[in-house]
Amino acid sequence: MLNVIRAESNGIPAGDRGLAYGDGLFETIHMRGRKAVLRAFHLDRMVADAGRLDIPVQRAELDAGITQAGVDQAVAFQSEDWVLKLILTRGSGGRGYRPPENSRPNLIVFASPMPPIPDSAGVVAELSRFPLTVNPQLAGMKTLNRLEQVMASREFTGREFELIMSDTAGNLVEGTRTNLFIRLGNEWFTPPVECLAVAGVMRRYLMECLGSAGYCVHEENLPPAMLSSENFRGLYLANSVVGIVPVRKLGGVDLPVEGGIETICDPLKTLE
Amino acid sequence: MLNVIRAESNGIPAGDRGLAYGDGLFETIHMRGRKAVLRAFHLDRMVADAGRLDIPVQRAELDAGITQAGVDQAVAFQSEDWVLKLILTRGSGGRGYRPPENSRPNLIVFASPMPPIPDSAGVVAELSRFPLTVNPQLAGMKTLNRLEQVMASREFTGREFELIMSDTAGNLVEGTRTNLFIRLGNEWFTPPVECLAVAGVMRRYLMECLGSAGYCVHEENLPPAMLSSENFRGLYLANSVVGIVPVRKLGGVDLPVEGGIETICDPLKTLE
Repeated sequence: MLNVIRAESNGIPAGDRGLAYGDGLFETIHMRGRKAVLRAFHLDRMVADAGRLDIPVQRAELDAGITQAGVDQAVAFQSEDWVLKLILTRGSGGRGYRPPENSRPNLIVFASPMPPIPDSAGVVAELSRFPLTVNPQLAGMKTLNRLEQVMASREFTGREFELIMSDTAGNLVEGTRTNLFIRLGNEWFTPPVECLAVAGVMRRYLMECLGSAGYCVHEENLPPAMLSSENFRGLYLANSVVGIVPVRKLGGVDLPVEGGIETICDPLKTLE
Repeated sequence: MLNVIRAESNGIPAGDRGLAYGDGLFETIHMRGRKAVLRAFHLDRMVADAGRLDIPVQRAELDAGITQAGVDQAVAFQSEDWVLKLILTRGSGGRGYRPPENSRPNLIVFASPMPPIPDSAGVVAELSRFPLTVNPQLAGMKTLNRLEQVMASREFTGREFELIMSDTAGNLVEGTRTNLFIRLGNEWFTPPVECLAVAGVMRRYLMECLGSAGYCVHEENLPPAMLSSENFRGLYLANSVVGIVPVRKLGGVDLPVEGGIETICDPLKTLE
């Protein structure tokens, strides 16, 4: 049974394992009034990752948490766009790192205004100097262990929308808060889940939309040379709050930007 | 200026970045009454690692936190041994992963009884199946990003004292909560800091004690073949609460155990 904590009114128990070890997960959900964008995708991911971490939670409990948050914020945000953040922790207890046999997870619920949405003409990005390492057993999960993204984010100067992180071999892997897609000719490329710190729900949705539109999507490493390939047509950032955003300049170099992605992939269609 | 929170009486603000991202550090200190074992070593590490993460904290503030915890627990533990845990987080605020420019860190103070100290005749350990990956920029720091240790700890069956984790190349790296030392002849080996998830204070103290006693200590990778080397004399676990413990059996195989380490290295000498 989940213990639901409203962030604006309650503190977190000091012994929570989310604080102690990052022993938990989070989701950041684009809301419009009481409805959630990509609701099923967020639920799918949190349930699957909780299973991988062995945090006992039911999909219906998380679903009820989203519904209740919509009710709680109905006056504050009405039919506007806002952001719902859910943190799911294993709860308290255990002997040091070892989890307790019967934990009661905490679900902490945060509501915040929608951030500014970037220009569809594209954003500026830089390459982060902070390398990304991924434990194969934790790959793709949106866990609370996010110090690499925090440390990379210290490089933000205010002039760029995103910092793109590379693995130790130099492949482009992901932005601090976005997944990457590259278009070469009529084919699309994105790194495979086993190389990712976070496999975003917008990544999954875009892959499905591209597939439905007849495009081939390859899950492959992205060496930076792809960006100077003759048939390179664009680099995109995907994130559940800002959607799909083209990059018009990376590391000072102009990149081609094409329109039309919004006709292939409109996440607002998934409102529920 | 640090915000000190006593864990037994106060909750943590839901927006704390320690919970959100594991954006912080911790120390686990062996106390005897009001005095701390390896006090200067714990302070050195937390101050150095806070500097690496750019969390603004003064050594004197942390030192005062230890002193105050000793005063607060004077009735509960008197002159007994107990464990003081300090969690230092960056505090609240910032834009997503990006830290705020002026953060006010939280220091959360936990007191707990001393765990049972293992038999000096040696302990049983097993090899963990969970691989350890280390980001070179975060190596050695006792940060709040500890999901790898949590996941490895799920393999505990109750029959072993420790689970030893290996890197993806198969080298022995560290226990879930201990650093490793191997003795070959009269020389000692321990993995270098850049390969470690946590560079323990007891590791540093043992290296200094061994050096003072005239031994050569090599910071090198530990391939498992070292354990079957002809001049292998012992495998030791080092941890600031339990001290230095020989392993008498690893993965079902008996290992040689020698006495005498306590005459080389007595952390209680450092009480202050």
